[in-house]
Amino acid sequence: MLLIKKAKKKINAAILIIGNEILSGRTQDLNVSFISNWLNNNCGISISEVRIIPDIEKKIIYNVLSLSKKFKYVFTTGGIGPTHDDITALSVSKAFKAKYNFNKEAYSILENYYGVGNFNDARKKMAKMPSGSKLIYNPSSAAPGFMIKNILCLPGVPSILKSMMPNLKKFLIKGPPVSSKTISLLTVESRIADHLTKLQKKYSKTVDIGSYPFFRLGRVGVSVVVRSINKKLIKKCSIELLKTAKQNNIKTHLL
Amino acid sequence: MLLIKKAKKKINAAILIIGNEILSGRTQDLNVSFISNWLNNNCGISISEVRIIPDIEKKIIYNVLSLSKKFKYVFTTGGIGPTHDDITALSVSKAFKAKYNFNKEAYSILENYYGVGNFNDARKKMAKMPSGSKLIYNPSSAAPGFMIKNILCLPGVPSILKSMMPNLKKFLIKGPPVSSKTISLLTVESRIADHLTKLQKKYSKTVDIGSYPFFRLGRVGVSVVVRSINKKLIKKCSIELLKTAKQNNIKTHLL
Repeated sequence: MLLIKKAKKKINAAILIIGNEILSGRTQDLNVSFISNWLNNNCGISISEVRIIPDIEKKIIYNVLSLSKKFKYVFTTGGIGPTHDDITALSVSKAFKAKYNFNKEAYSILENYYGVGNFNDARKKMAKMPSGSKLIYNPSSAAPGFMIKNILCLPGVPSILKSMMPNLKKFLIKGPPVSSKTISLLTVESRIADHLTKLQKKYSKTVDIGSYPFFRLGRVGVSVVVRSINKKLIKKCSIELLKTAKQNNIKTHLL
Repeated sequence: MLLIKKAKKKINAAILIIGNEILSGRTQDLNVSFISNWLNNNCGISISEVRIIPDIEKKIIYNVLSLSKKFKYVFTTGGIGPTHDDITALSVSKAFKAKYNFNKEAYSILENYYGVGNFNDARKKMAKMPSGSKLIYNPSSAAPGFMIKNILCLPGVPSILKSMMPNLKKFLIKGPPVSSKTISLLTVESRIADHLTKLQKKYSKTVDIGSYPFFRLGRVGVSVVVRSINKKLIKKCSIELLKTAKQNNIKTHLL
């Protein structure tokens, strides 16, 4: 039987995106918002920091170690393929002074997938990882991700990454998910800033209020996002906000 | 007369995205790829690291100082509006132990824009910044960004940010832009990995070769991106790659 522990406090994690193509602007990152939403909705884990770094060994080592100390989990994306610029597994091994070896199970999964005759050196490379890693299975293209210490290494291709997320659930302690409610007001930020400041002070440390201007179909407005792990407080805070808006003749905008 | 200095070596910069809405996955970041491409194409400045952090003062201070030491320039986005969660200007002031005061010019720009009668406290807040800042003018919505030391603070709303980019050019030393060529091959990474490794070794430190699998209209392939500040080397390296592809019966794919 699988025992999933559940934490009462918010669990904070980081994402480390490894990839020159994201830094150069060639490729638009899509993984941050997907991973963040997925982890919150499925595991109650909040992303508290993201770093995007190049495919440079010493930078990977530095950031893996620094984020590993600061956060409960670190999710890396990118750099676990078969080519010369895929150096995540080797760098993570060096970071933790673990041997960089073939993982027997990964080797056998990949050999099965490609067939013995087509299992060349580049493909074999994808079975090499830090000694002691646990595998994160990949239902799309076989090559598994891996977990060592509190680092979970995933691929960069969004469709493959998405397919693997359910398979890392078993490694994670669950926390209380953050819920949110968005109230869109037909006004400008500077007209409601004072009200929001008061409301945030009143609910400090229990509710997080964010204010984001929008320009939609020629209408100018503000989306106020109320976030908390306590749904009752979100409701209470939202009702107060709507009351204040009404008192000040500010209309709400249905999305 | 404006004297623009030009550096011969690559100039490395960082982006610091300040915003709970990006971390939570509610908002898809679009600024990284835009800023990175714009800086490379217009100023020859390369983005070497990106961090995304929450609207928390001590985290902003820590990251501003840490990135400021490591990179020639740091571009922050977000947190310079009128509401309670806009704390970038105050935090940057604290980071550099600079006074957080009204900037006279910014005050007058905003007073003019809104009209004296409508220039309320929330709007006035957008004229407060670290003492000694230089203004980055905003042709969309008046509220300026600012530069202090090597930190350039920009808004988070992509359309407003885009409109301000030409106005920060005058503050930046120009470097040699990185050019790139993409060669798309109808093959899989593991079939060309060895060739790419050899090619990267041959051109080490002068050309950066990236390999990115693609799945497009039912076709599987690999985009090989050759990047360098030296266009001749890109051409030479690309020709070698195409020759190798031909020798191995790998077709190229026209994008």
